[in-house]
Order: sequence, then C-alpha cells, then structure tokens
Amino acid sequence: DVVVPARALISVFYKDGVVELAQYLSSLGCEILSTGGTAKKMREAGLIVKDVSEHTMSPECLDGRVKTLHPKIHGGLLAVRGNEQHEKDMVDNEIGVIDITILNLYPFEATVAKGSAFEECVENIDIGGPSMLRSTAKNHAFTTIVTDPSQYGELMETMKANGGGTTLAMRKRFAARAFATSAAYDSAIASYFAAQLDTNAPVAARVYKPEYSLKYGCNPQQKPAGISSILGHPLPFSVVNGKPGYINLLDAANAWQLVKELKEATGLAAATSFKHVSPAGAALAVPLTATECKAFEITEEDAAKLTPGALAYIRARNADPMCSFGDFAAISDVVDEDTAMYLKKEVSDGIIAAGYTPEALEILKSKKKGNFIVLEATPNFVPPSMEYREVFGMAFSQKRNDIIVSNDHLTKTVTKAAVTDDVKRDMILGCITLKYTQSNSVGFCKNGQMIGVGAGQQSRVDCVKLAGRKVATFSLRQHEQVLGLQFKAGVKRQDRVNARVRYIEGDFTAEERVRWEANFDEVPAPLTAETKAAYMDALNGVILSSDAFFPFRDGIDHASKVGVSFVVQPGGSVADASIIECCDEYGMGMCMTGVRLFHH
Amino acid sequence: DVVVPARALISVFYKDGVVELAQYLSSLGCEILSTGGTAKKMREAGLIVKDVSEHTMSPECLDGRVKTLHPKIHGGLLAVRGNEQHEKDMVDNEIGVIDITILNLYPFEATVAKGSAFEECVENIDIGGPSMLRSTAKNHAFTTIVTDPSQYGELMETMKANGGGTTLAMRKRFAARAFATSAAYDSAIASYFAAQLDTNAPVAARVYKPEYSLKYGCNPQQKPAGISSILGHPLPFSVVNGKPGYINLLDAANAWQLVKELKEATGLAAATSFKHVSPAGAALAVPLTATECKAFEITEEDAAKLTPGALAYIRARNADPMCSFGDFAAISDVVDEDTAMYLKKEVSDGIIAAGYTPEALEILKSKKKGNFIVLEATPNFVPPSMEYREVFGMAFSQKRNDIIVSNDHLTKTVTKAAVTDDVKRDMILGCITLKYTQSNSVGFCKNGQMIGVGAGQQSRVDCVKLAGRKVATFSLRQHEQVLGLQFKAGVKRQDRVNARVRYIEGDFTAEERVRWEANFDEVPAPLTAETKAAYMDALNGVILSSDAFFPFRDGIDHASKVGVSFVVQPGGSVADASIIECCDEYGMGMCMTGVRLFHH
Repeated sequence: DVVVPARALISVFYKDGVVELAQYLSSLGCEILSTGGTAKKMREAGLIVKDVSEHTMSPECLDGRVKTLHPKIHGGLLAVRGNEQHEKDMVDNEIGVIDITILNLYPFEATVAKGSAFEECVENIDIGGPSMLRSTAKNHAFTTIVTDPSQYGELMETMKANGGGTTLAMRKRFAARAFATSAAYDSAIASYFAAQLDTNAPVAARVYKPEYSLKYGCNPQQKPAGISSILGHPLPFSVVNGKPGYINLLDAANAWQLVKELKEATGLAAATSFKHVSPAGAALAVPLTATECKAFEITEEDAAKLTPGALAYIRARNADPMCSFGDFAAISDVVDEDTAMYLKKEVSDGIIAAGYTPEALEILKSKKKGNFIVLEATPNFVPPSMEYREVFGMAFSQKRNDIIVSNDHLTKTVTKAAVTDDVKRDMILGCITLKYTQSNSVGFCKNGQMIGVGAGQQSRVDCVKLAGRKVATFSLRQHEQVLGLQFKAGVKRQDRVNARVRYIEGDFTAEERVRWEANFDEVPAPLTAETKAAYMDALNGVILSSDAFFPFRDGIDHASKVGVSFVVQPGGSVADASIIECCDEYGMGMCMTGVRLFHH
Repeated sequence: DVVVPARALISVFYKDGVVELAQYLSSLGCEILSTGGTAKKMREAGLIVKDVSEHTMSPECLDGRVKTLHPKIHGGLLAVRGNEQHEKDMVDNEIGVIDITILNLYPFEATVAKGSAFEECVENIDIGGPSMLRSTAKNHAFTTIVTDPSQYGELMETMKANGGGTTLAMRKRFAARAFATSAAYDSAIASYFAAQLDTNAPVAARVYKPEYSLKYGCNPQQKPAGISSILGHPLPFSVVNGKPGYINLLDAANAWQLVKELKEATGLAAATSFKHVSPAGAALAVPLTATECKAFEITEEDAAKLTPGALAYIRARNADPMCSFGDFAAISDVVDEDTAMYLKKEVSDGIIAAGYTPEALEILKSKKKGNFIVLEATPNFVPPSMEYREVFGMAFSQKRNDIIVSNDHLTKTVTKAAVTDDVKRDMILGCITLKYTQSNSVGFCKNGQMIGVGAGQQSRVDCVKLAGRKVATFSLRQHEQVLGLQFKAGVKRQDRVNARVRYIEGDFTAEERVRWEANFDEVPAPLTAETKAAYMDALNGVILSSDAFFPFRDGIDHASKVGVSFVVQPGGSVADASIIECCDEYGMGMCMTGVRLFHH
C-alpha cells in the first residue's frame, strides 16, 4: 500500500508552501518535474528541477499548449506498477514513472470575475492540468494527486509516518477530492458558457459545496441531508450556536429575507416568528399601547425601555402566540440583552439576526440546555439571480423574486376612500410578509403588526376566512373580559395564552371544559357571541393584503366583518371593477400594486 | 466563421447513427481517425478509416491507455488556425489539424449501477475521452465537439446549409454542452468516491438539460424560468396539449406522485384536485351513495357507468368544490371519454394522467379554447435518490421521501377501539395525501375520499380547526335542507356550489345576503345553528390523519366535534400517552405509523 515516490510533477498556481513540500520530496531522492513559474520559484530556492519538456524530449511548440499532453507524462502516471507488459512498455518507450502530481487549477470563476472578455476567459481554460489531475486520480492505487495547498501538511505527515511513502487510504481520499475539483472546474465553465449563450443554453450545471451535514431532511427517513453553498458564493448565514435542522434552515432563509427587506423598505427594525416556512407573525418596531402591553403580558415600564428589535419581535410573537410556540425568530437588527432575555422566556427553536451583543449571545447560548440555534446573517449577501429546485426528478428554474414592495408600488389608489402614509407603511409590511408566506395567502395588519396571516390555502376566500378568524382572536385578546381573566397561581405562560384563546373561541367539548376551568379559582363568565360580535363590529383600521388578485368579491365581503378599512393587492383580475365597487360599498381604501407575490 | 472539416476524430460508445455521420463527413473529403470498436463498425460499412496510433506514429503501449494523450492529437485540436507560429510548429512537428471530435462518454453511473467492484469502476474511468472533449471544446473557435448522438442531426443540417461547414454559433453551443457533460461525468465519479469513502462529497454538481422554457416563474416578474431534466434522466411527463406554467407544473409533479402512490398502495384508481401545490381533494374509486350523487349533482344512472378513474376524480373534485375551481387534476389511470366529459364541465387548468384514450384527448384539447393543459406521465419514471433545492443562495439536499405508507405501517393500534381493514384503506389515503400537502397538515377522510384537507398551518390545532370546518361544510352539503335548495333557472353550476356553501356558513353581510337571495325565487329558510349542530353530532366514522405527532390533546378534542372515530399519525411525542388517553375518552381508534410526513 505504501508508495515512496521516485518522481513528482509539480505545477501550481498558488505557490504558498510548494517550496517546503518540494524540499521534503527532494530529500527523499524524488526527482522533481516542473514548468514555468513553479520551476523558477523552486530553482530560486536551490532545488534541482527538471523541465517537463526536457523529460518528454519534445520541443516546445504551440505556445506550450500540448506540453504535458504526452505519452511520457500520462504513461508515467497511468502505468500499472508491477504489470509485466506495462513495465516492459515503459522501458521500450522510455517512460519513467511519475508517482505524485501536485497541481492546482486557477479558478475559472476568478477569470470571469475579473471582467475578462469571452476570448480571454476561454484562453484561460486549463487543458493540461485537468488531464494530469484525472490520470493521477484514476491510478491512485499507485499515484498521489494533490490539488490544494491545504493538503500539503497531511501529505507530509502521512509520508513521514510511513517511511517517506504515501498510503492507499490517503491517495484514495485525495483522488476523490481531485475528481470533485475537476467537476467543479468544468461546471463553472459550463455555467459561464450557458450564461454567454443566453437563450440557447444547452445545459446548466450547478455546483454545490457541502457546508453542513444535517441529521436528516424534512423527515427522519430522509437521510442523508445537508446544506451546501453555491460554489463561489458564501453561505448566507453562519451557525453561532446549536445544530439547525432542515426545516429550521428553510424557516431561517425565508424569515431573514422578510425582516431584511422590511427594514430596507420602511427604515424600521423588523422581526418575524416562523413556523413551517410561513410566518405566524411579523412586525415593525412600533411602540405598544397600554392595552397591548396588558394583552402581551409586558409592563408599560419594561415596554418603554425596549430596543427597536425587541419591540418588533414582541409584536411578531404576539400576533398568534399559540402558533409561535417553538418558532424560529428573525430580527433585522443586532440582538441585545433585552431581546435575548425576552426570547429566553419563550419556547422557541432558534433565531437568525444581523448580529448579537456578547451579553445577548451568552443568554441565548444557555437556552434549551445549550441547544438553542443561533444564526448570524452574512452581511451584504447577494444570492445568484437564478434559482433551481428539483421536484420529482426534474429541475424548476426561475429568476429570484427580487422586487421589494415599497411606496413606489402604492401610488395607485383605486377607491373613493383615500390611503394615508401610515397605512402605506403597514401595506408594505403586509406585502413583504406575504412575499415569504406559502401561497395562496392573505394577511391582516394594524399598528405595524401582522395580526392574522392566512397561509397555504386552495382558494382566496379560504385565506380570508382563515386569517380573519385569527384577527378576531387577536383583537378579542384585548377585550376587557379577556384581559381580566384571573388565573390560578402557578399557571404557566403558554397555558395562559392557550386558555385565553379557548375562552375566546368558546367551543369546548365537555372534557375540554373541565380541564379549562381548572386554570381558574373561580370559573369566568363566558364571552358571549353577542359580546364578541359587538366588539368586532367596533373594530376598524385593519389592512388586508393579498398575494394575488381577488377573483370574486367574496373575500372582501368576509374581510368587512373583521374591521378592514384598507386593502392592498396586485389587481389584474377581470373582476377588478366589481372588487373596487365592493370596496366602495364598504368604504374601504384600496391600492393596486401590480406586483403578484406567489411564493412556493 | 464557417469551418469545413479536413479531419475528424470519432470514438463513440453509442454507435447509433455514427456510420451515417461518418459517411457524410467522408463525402466532404474529411479524413476519419478512429479507434477500436468504432473504427471496426465504420470499416464494416465500407468507410476508409485511419487508426489513431497510425496517425500519431506511436506504437500501441500500456494497453492503449495513452493512445490519444499525444501532442499529434491535442496539437491538432488545440492549434490556433491562422496563427503563423502555430502553423509553422504544426508543419515542423508533423501535426495535422483535427477539426471535429465525435465522442461520447460511457456514463460512469452505468458502470456503478452494474454492481461492479470498486477496481472495475475505477478502471472504467475514461481519461483520453474527456481530454479530447475539453481540448476540442476550448478551441471551438475552430473545432467542433459532438458529445451526443442526438446532436448528429443538427450537425449535418447546419453543415449542409453552410456548404459543408460548421458555424461558430453551433460550435459554441456544442462546446457548452461538452463542458457540462464533462462536469457531470466527473461529478458522478466524485460522488461515487465520496460514497465509497463514507464522507460527504467535497462538491456535488447537478447538471440540468433545459426542456421547456416557461413564460415566467412563480410570478410574472420572475423571468426567465424553465423546466429542465436532470442530465441522463427523462422528464417525468410529456406535454400533450397547452402551455403549462411554473405553478401548474409544481402542482402536476406533486399531484401525480400522490395518485401513483395511492394506486400502488391500495390497488384502486385514485385522483386528486390540486391548487397551489396542495390538494383541495383526493380520493379512491369508491362507488357513490345516492345522497352523494345528489350532493355532487350527478344522476345515479350516470354514476353507475363511471370508470374507476372518473369516479375517483368526481370524489376528489367534490371534497371542496369551491377550492377546486381552476384546479390541476391528476388521475392514476388512462383517462376515458366519460372522465373527459366530466372535466369539460368543470373550471380546471389542466390534468396529468397515465394516458388518454383518443376520444378523451380530443375532448380535453377542445377545452379552454384549446389551452387546457394535458400532461402524460412518463411510465416507470424513477427520480434520482437525492434532491437539491436552492433557497436564498444556498442549496438544501436530502434523500427523497420514498416511503409509501401501506398496511405494513398500520400494524400498531394503540387504543382500546380497534381499526378495521376498510378504515386502514382510508388511513392510507389520508397519509399519502398528506405526504404531498404543504406542512403542517392534517386531513379528514371517509368513504375513500378526503373530505377536509388542512394545509400550510403554523400549529397542529390550527390545521385541525381549518380542516374540521371543511368537514362540517362537506357533510352539511348532504343535509336534506341543502340538497333541497331550489335555485332559479339559469343559475350556473359553480354559483350553485358557492351558494350552498354560503347557506351552510350563514354569516352573510347585508350586501352579501341580497346577492345570495337573488339565486332563488323563494328565499330558503335558514339552516340554523341548532340544525347544523344536531347534524354534526350524528356524524361519525371520519378518519383523521396527521403529518406529524400531536404535541397536545387539543387537536383530538377539536376533531371529536366533526365525527372523527379514527386517527392515524406517526406518534413519537412526549405527549403520546395523553393523546392515547384522549382518544380512548372519545372512543376513537388510533394507529401510529412511525412515519412522519412533513412536506415543503
């Protein structure tokens, strides 16, 4: 298994460490073949180096294009050692073994990134390098292929531990890496060609560099699973604490984009609370009213001290606190101690944010027995313009949805009722939230806070019904009868949250009622249907956003029952005129953005 | 730009069409170089072929391992035509131009798939082929690289149209394809090595072959967009009629898997009705009762004649006919005339099925002014085991969720109440439906039909509430007061469907009531809350399936209000004992499958 190299071929772009390596090989009596700049550098260090053209006994020609594409090189790499015929052929044809190849390929992307012209990029495509790489890797039973300076250390350590020889296990690992390097190199070229060809791209290659392996994918039976960066790009986040799962990271990717865009569009700190790749809540840093403080169980004194990021997260988390149980949080700002302390109290899986103060990080790291997931977003990360997705053995490709809804999209008010600037801020909140909500979706918001998100439905009116019920529950949590519920001592926070929701819904089975009543020393008077209806009738100022047009007026009819005064939607339906008429009937103000926001 | 080839190098694994191509090249006076089996085949066809070793004037050695790795070959490919020094070097070194290379690489995966030993797989790694491919592709300003027999036609047509010469545009496109082929080849090798080494592949390359370009992606602003096959695999469908959009195809991919697996697991024809990448309904071919016929507006006579596929689709479509408006349908069987006639009446976007009778196809092609989308599933299509998905500039990879829930997963009844075989059939229906429903999700079913699907929610109990309301609406559509509604003449089918739903829901605004009442000559008596409650109290036999465990008993409590007698779910929660206790309280029978079915 151990091979002591008699001859090495060294030709590298990155020259760090190559002299030391060559000196080591030379000290073993290994002959060094080399070319150009690499040979020069080694000679300057006092090494004896033989030129490849001297070795092949071929004159330099065609600007050196075929220097190494020669039987004396490839025969030396590919011959089966110990095979009688091969040994004889080598003698007859004056082919000497080459046992180790040290080379690296100048990344093709780097040439492209320089802004070089097409011809220059093509001229930079390495032909000799990949051929030697592949020959050496194929014959790894005998030969060693080293493709990255980071491998020099391991190479020399292994050789020193094995009497100056390489081991089969190492050669095999290095061969695997070499083939992957070659695949990546040609993928980059293929992608570049495809982009150049624009319409007629014959194939597209996407090259992924595994960064984290995951315990499993969407489900435990889906192993292996992992997260890769797209070659040449960083990951959009780094893991600061914990071991995120597949769905955590889907949540994080969507949640982070949501808060980042919200902050860009409004200038306010933003936060969201994700579950299963849709937001349970999302909000901006808008101060809490006294009633909201009571409903969200925070003192007015504490609320006054909150940083914008904390304020936004408290709003996001309290939109639908039953759903936000075990959420994945995202905050547009650097997380401070206050925010961390608030998060520590809540049942939550993880967070992604712009950064963390050292104090905040300590607190978060101690959450969930140290397993709370903390991700830090990569600053100024820009994803590639096109995105690919495999479903059932085919690939869907599309340009990213890179529109950020802003005031520029809210210039078209189509109703008699007007739309004010404050309302527009919340319309932006609604639109950007839906951009990262599974379709079909609608969302209701007020005071810089989503108060009902209806995700993943099969009809628009179902979205409105679903989210409308959330608006009712959210709003009734501020009804004095709900705020006044007197829980037994020792009833936990999440149990109080759930008990209030069930009190509002009121549809207990007999078994449920018994358990619910156990939360109280004295059974509260029911919240009657009449009380609820009266409260909801008085509600107004709610904004309804929709990820696509309303095909029928029924959605607006339903929305009128949960305090909606404003609507924002793309428009573009044959029913637009009747939708506008419907809004006018209810006195709603509506903007049409022209921007559809389906998300899957 | 046009190059008439003086010399060609041909070495192919797939020999179809190569003789015809060589004859054409030969007829232009082009010399043919070749090797081994390819040379033999061409000579047998009467062609004059020169061996590569004769051309290089090098003796055959090392079992032919370095035959083409020779300056006379690569110089002939790489020389810059018209460059004075290069031209001189070619003369001095007796290097003749090679203008076109026709080769294909025997797919490395195929060697592996044969079950070959590691050494044999490595022995099969092609070295000479990829080197020639890359040299020819690099120098495409002058040379043509042909890597797939499917390119022969275009090659010859282009040459015929250009006086026997190739064009730069074509050479560039072929070069792009060649680099992608090379990338894919080495990716397969790298992946194999990584698997052998039991580590993550250092990089993974996915190579896609664009098949259809789409008008846009998820939204109109997302251009370009397209569908690609994964290189080496067919597409899972073919387009028979219409121009599918991005979301249509996401629907089709999921819907087809759903019905295919349902049929495999139950032996019954299956159908589903998709909207926004989740099912509005899914069903098996179970005969309709007289009341169901009435509720679904089909005569018992017609119902008796339905083929299984049609029967399944009628059930699927009628689970939630308001949501199924404009659906994408999938049927496990060949679609016949009856099914097509039924589909023609409904507002629907498209269908994917195992096939179509000629009569059925004619009917479907005439739907939507000829724009109805008709897809035919590729028989026996098997997608690659791993799937990749890019989100926000990173790639998620996971093994496909290839478990098909069957009776084998239903052996663990954990409750006092038992679970019968008929119930198990519907449990399978529920589980497979949820496998293709956006998470979180639960589904209710009865009589081989999903009667309430709750998709895309942020808490389990919200799924149950959402889908539970659908169960109530579905069931009440069979209440005699609803069946007895007397519509005015001329009220359209979908308007009748919607009016019945609104009658059941009953929560009209004043404006809505006026419009609703206009459907009738005589205003129907309201369906009172008491009537509805009594009807729902009597309902039983409904099966609840859940894509993941119940974290709290509240979901089961809610389910008890909509006639649930059976539950199927993976189990695995710390709350399992209390969930079982809860089911026992309500007398429900529950199976735990151990299989989680999250889907994103």
